[in-house]
Amino acid sequence: MRSASRDPLDAVSLTLPAAACPGQSVDDIDTPSLVLDLDAFEANLDRMQAAADAAGIQLRPHAKAHKCPDISLAQIARGAVGVCCQKVSEALPFVAAGVMDIHISNEVALNAANPAKADLLAQLARHARLSVCVDDVAQIDALAAACERADSRLDVFVEIDVGQGRCGVPDGPAALGLAQRIAGFERLHMRGLQAYHGGIQHLRDWNERRDAAAKAAARTAAVVAALRAAGVECEVVTGGGSGSVEFDLQSGVYTEIQPGSYVFMDADYASNAYTGTMRFSHGLFIASTVMSVAAGDRVIVDAGLKSMAVDSGLPWVWDAEVGAPSRALDYVAANDEHGIVKPSGPAAVPASSPLPTLGSRVMLVPGHCDPTLNLYDEVVCVRAGVVEAVWPISARGFSR
Amino acid sequence: MRSASRDPLDAVSLTLPAAACPGQSVDDIDTPSLVLDLDAFEANLDRMQAAADAAGIQLRPHAKAHKCPDISLAQIARGAVGVCCQKVSEALPFVAAGVMDIHISNEVALNAANPAKADLLAQLARHARLSVCVDDVAQIDALAAACERADSRLDVFVEIDVGQGRCGVPDGPAALGLAQRIAGFERLHMRGLQAYHGGIQHLRDWNERRDAAAKAAARTAAVVAALRAAGVECEVVTGGGSGSVEFDLQSGVYTEIQPGSYVFMDADYASNAYTGTMRFSHGLFIASTVMSVAAGDRVIVDAGLKSMAVDSGLPWVWDAEVGAPSRALDYVAANDEHGIVKPSGPAAVPASSPLPTLGSRVMLVPGHCDPTLNLYDEVVCVRAGVVEAVWPISARGFSR
Repeated sequence: MRSASRDPLDAVSLTLPAAACPGQSVDDIDTPSLVLDLDAFEANLDRMQAAADAAGIQLRPHAKAHKCPDISLAQIARGAVGVCCQKVSEALPFVAAGVMDIHISNEVALNAANPAKADLLAQLARHARLSVCVDDVAQIDALAAACERADSRLDVFVEIDVGQGRCGVPDGPAALGLAQRIAGFERLHMRGLQAYHGGIQHLRDWNERRDAAAKAAARTAAVVAALRAAGVECEVVTGGGSGSVEFDLQSGVYTEIQPGSYVFMDADYASNAYTGTMRFSHGLFIASTVMSVAAGDRVIVDAGLKSMAVDSGLPWVWDAEVGAPSRALDYVAANDEHGIVKPSGPAAVPASSPLPTLGSRVMLVPGHCDPTLNLYDEVVCVRAGVVEAVWPISARGFSR
Repeated sequence: MRSASRDPLDAVSLTLPAAACPGQSVDDIDTPSLVLDLDAFEANLDRMQAAADAAGIQLRPHAKAHKCPDISLAQIARGAVGVCCQKVSEALPFVAAGVMDIHISNEVALNAANPAKADLLAQLARHARLSVCVDDVAQIDALAAACERADSRLDVFVEIDVGQGRCGVPDGPAALGLAQRIAGFERLHMRGLQAYHGGIQHLRDWNERRDAAAKAAARTAAVVAALRAAGVECEVVTGGGSGSVEFDLQSGVYTEIQPGSYVFMDADYASNAYTGTMRFSHGLFIASTVMSVAAGDRVIVDAGLKSMAVDSGLPWVWDAEVGAPSRALDYVAANDEHGIVKPSGPAAVPASSPLPTLGSRVMLVPGHCDPTLNLYDEVVCVRAGVVEAVWPISARGFSR
């Protein structure tokens, strides 16, 4: 029945077709694909820039949330002073795309036998203004040596721990010791402090989050004062995230905020309570397709663990007609390449609406945007249901 | 202090340096990186092939675990009949690498307006022997139409649900209906049944897992018998995973097994109880570097959510000297680009050994190998602590 010979392999037939082309309907995008609603996205960008402008605080959005230079350029066009990256390699595609001011909001991991990271950072600093965090003298010495090799200069932020229990020195005296060490190197410039508390971003209760942000800001203010008393001025105090930014803008301590996720509003951040002006809109979706209806009481979609990060919970099913999370369907389990979608509510209650049919489209709101973007090479940008552009996620996988 | 002009951007300075080069020490690999211990890996391949050979069952390892053609070719060189892929696009780099027999162990998601998936599958079938699962007549009709357009032929497996509650038809009559539909298309060939139960792979207790596997095998045998009674022979009955394979090989039902994770042995699979011969060795690690020691009672490594999947739990710290998971250190929390490593045991007990120093190497065993490999573009292969090769993970991100 089957002929033994095969066609020769050739390049043409072995290329993966594009997931989407401008002009296509969102319903025709090949799945699973990452989809950005441009209207919601642009409104989110405008809203955050307006809040920063009103407070007289600089906005330096975090690029680790999206890894996409097109998004950073849209933020900078609205007034952002530059971007944050979380790893040195992550900064590379942004420098290549023309982002001229990048803060690595993290310490550089040192390896005595392989100074690749510090060297790359020092080389990037020949092309753009680069800054980085430190919390140990060994990092300062290694950065200075790398700048010497590259003939470049770096801005340096002392990171302080304001309650996260992760990186950063604990207090004024420790910060002062690092500031003095930085001052000893001509190629390094002590720019200020980084004070970021990731844990408080996700406190659901508004009052609880406000109080935690106030506590972190007070710890930061104490270190700023201790440095000032010792003759060290902080030009910039940077920190804050999408969950705390409404408090950070009013803190009187931060001169710069670093929110990232606000551009998308993932399910985890959407579970926080916000005041009206600082609630952002869902702009990021995973387009999936119903691939099996054989089970009868559930449907199986083609987006699973390889199409979304589940560290902050499973995705929400999106009800496009209502423009809100579905009240009829829940995504209840993720396998590598499968997602199980069931009617909401206890199994004893009959489903209020019929299940999606085989081949139909199910849009999902991911639980955590940052590691979800990191799974895709491109994001399909749509407006009013039509594909407008496809943006490369150029720093996808750049975690070194 | 800073000159206003910058070097022009140029291609040379904007390339990410390789994570590792053959001949380097494992300690010098840039991090985070995925590391494969070739001795453990090859022993795992030999062990599974020997078990399949001894049982007279065909081994078709699952490529979704690794997405790396070099690994599949090493399996085929030892006797594997081909590979499984989980998505059509995933098969593409394997066909390109010369893998000539690929089973898509999944249904193809249909989209009436965009038949890209079925068309790609039918086109791939011009270059290699391809098979795919179905659990609905609409899939059969769409596959036949795509084969007509591509002038190619496909093998088709009816998937049956043996307890997973995901894809697959429930019983003999439903399977027979699909088999008869397949028989109506000259370009499709009914090859047999797929019966896979993912849930039972991770049952920790050996007896419980054995009983669950026996139940799934019995359900499969009943469908095989029902088809035979209706005159439909199953050439191939395919299924089984790394957790159930020691039972599936002896079931008398499966003619082919599909294990994937055995090549690496992630922390989740290692938490199962096995008989001696079917326990595989840890071969896959994430090389991380201590990037901060400022907190004092913990260290921060540079591998977080973007360097590992945590859906099946956090990674284990590996004690390379003992060749086993560390009894002194635990990886206790993952952020996007940070991991927090603490001494094991209650905080009241003083740490039995000093914490790793700034810049030192920490090797991690990922919780779930499949989505972890899907984060990396390459895997660094080492033997006795020296880098021997760097293999591309060519199907990384190919989830369509």
